[in-house]
Amino acid sequence: MNQSNSPLRVALFGSTGSIGESTLRVAAESEGRITFTALIAGRNGDRLAEQVAEHEPPFAALFDERAAKDWRNPCDKTKFYRGAAGIAALMKELEADVLINAIVGAAGLETTLAAMGRVKRIALANKESLVVAGEPVMREAARTGTELIPIDSEHSALHQCMEGRLPGEVSRLVLTASGGPFREATMHRIRNATRAEALNHPTWEMGPKITVDSATLMNKGLEVIEAMHLFGFSADKIGVVVHPESIVHSMVELRDGSYLAQLGETDMAHPIRYALSYPERWEAPGRFELAALSGLHFEEPDLERFPCLALAFRAA
Amino acid sequence: MNQSNSPLRVALFGSTGSIGESTLRVAAESEGRITFTALIAGRNGDRLAEQVAEHEPPFAALFDERAAKDWRNPCDKTKFYRGAAGIAALMKELEADVLINAIVGAAGLETTLAAMGRVKRIALANKESLVVAGEPVMREAARTGTELIPIDSEHSALHQCMEGRLPGEVSRLVLTASGGPFREATMHRIRNATRAEALNHPTWEMGPKITVDSATLMNKGLEVIEAMHLFGFSADKIGVVVHPESIVHSMVELRDGSYLAQLGETDMAHPIRYALSYPERWEAPGRFELAALSGLHFEEPDLERFPCLALAFRAA
Repeated sequence: MNQSNSPLRVALFGSTGSIGESTLRVAAESEGRITFTALIAGRNGDRLAEQVAEHEPPFAALFDERAAKDWRNPCDKTKFYRGAAGIAALMKELEADVLINAIVGAAGLETTLAAMGRVKRIALANKESLVVAGEPVMREAARTGTELIPIDSEHSALHQCMEGRLPGEVSRLVLTASGGPFREATMHRIRNATRAEALNHPTWEMGPKITVDSATLMNKGLEVIEAMHLFGFSADKIGVVVHPESIVHSMVELRDGSYLAQLGETDMAHPIRYALSYPERWEAPGRFELAALSGLHFEEPDLERFPCLALAFRAA
Repeated sequence: MNQSNSPLRVALFGSTGSIGESTLRVAAESEGRITFTALIAGRNGDRLAEQVAEHEPPFAALFDERAAKDWRNPCDKTKFYRGAAGIAALMKELEADVLINAIVGAAGLETTLAAMGRVKRIALANKESLVVAGEPVMREAARTGTELIPIDSEHSALHQCMEGRLPGEVSRLVLTASGGPFREATMHRIRNATRAEALNHPTWEMGPKITVDSATLMNKGLEVIEAMHLFGFSADKIGVVVHPESIVHSMVELRDGSYLAQLGETDMAHPIRYALSYPERWEAPGRFELAALSGLHFEEPDLERFPCLALAFRAA
């Protein structure tokens, strides 16, 4: 989307979380292709100060009023806002090509809706925007001509597999699920699991909320609902397959019964880079070795031990 | 390519071989979407007579003069030609949307060149056309505006993965190879292999020439050269990975280091159907079960035991 030589102007909402930090890493590796025009965090003022000192964005903000009150702005080029009202004001002044919404939970919806029509693209790591308000969000995106590109390894994979396909060519979406830390655990063990056990994800490093949601497969259920809205598929045309190695990030079934799959490293930098650079697709450091494809596994999810997934299909 | 209700007119060169018979099966399953305007075989007059009786094509022919001499035409609507000269004359009268070139070996080149500009699309199962004359064939295709769609599971997979990609987005092609019947055999055993052993392919049912070429990996070498011309990639941007299960039909590496793969059943009906129906992609009977993805393997080819593959890279 940024064919000129000027860097892509990125507003990063949720800059101190897992996706935020990965985005800063992608920017560092992108050879000046990205400039941050806003860095916005929840309550981690200390880390935000470091980020602002390094990137000197025109705008910064903290959602949390208390954290914002004590915040000392390290950069005199940066205008600082506090709380929801302050951020609403910031949004009116913001100039950005892409807004990354990496706010955790349903609180992210407000930012998604406020950004519509104010930026060309929303790179959406906040799946709750679509889970709680999929229809109005998609309608607003269409009305305002705002692109929505997912930052979720599964939906990014689906987006990549869908690209260039004709309407009707894709008959079904198949989300892969690692199965989380309790994939092979008994119902009893799952019931008595500790917080630390639930946070011990086998393949992905993510924030705590999504990691716990992954342990119960609730996250996969939310992803089913997210995929419905994002790609316009009904829930009966979306499948989930457990794939413990998380190498195949998701697949689409085509009308002739064959599949297209997107695969590679388990690193959120990939979907972030894709969401920023689409359709250009920037180079990435490192290389995926095809030997990693050996011995992959795929199995049906167990809806008895993981009732949240069944629940999501019923709610969809 | 055939948006109207009239059936796709297909000229089938090599109708009694493995690809030819699979094409007839695809036609039988395609609910009247295909009509054969020519059925052309090498020397199997008995089978050609059965096919002509069933499909009543406007044209039929046998390449082999001796077989043609004794042939009794079972259909008075069918005009019969014999030998290379006869088939050259037939080509001038032929009306077809797609010509399937499933002639075995380098003899297929003449048909490929003769079809240029006479049909909208050549569905190319004869990889030797590109191996022996890749540059002139691609030049003629461009000059005459003739589409070339491969009927080769690997190249069909690559075509499907490349579809909708921007120039430069795909950085490398990766052809999968089953490894053939001698994948784990010692050099000594390969040297002393019988014809029957070489014809015992573990995953694909194909004609004898390509099956023996698969046993030596010569076929994969030819495919590397075929891919070079078809997709405009140099040999150093084409890799080969041994994948004994033949479920992943091939992959492309993208600029950001991730991969797109096309996968599904090991049935030549798939690439045939794709080559005929592209870009529409017709439904197929049956369904691929994702459980088949479990326990796939990928390994580097052994160029010492399979020197033909190294030879092809040197020749490319």
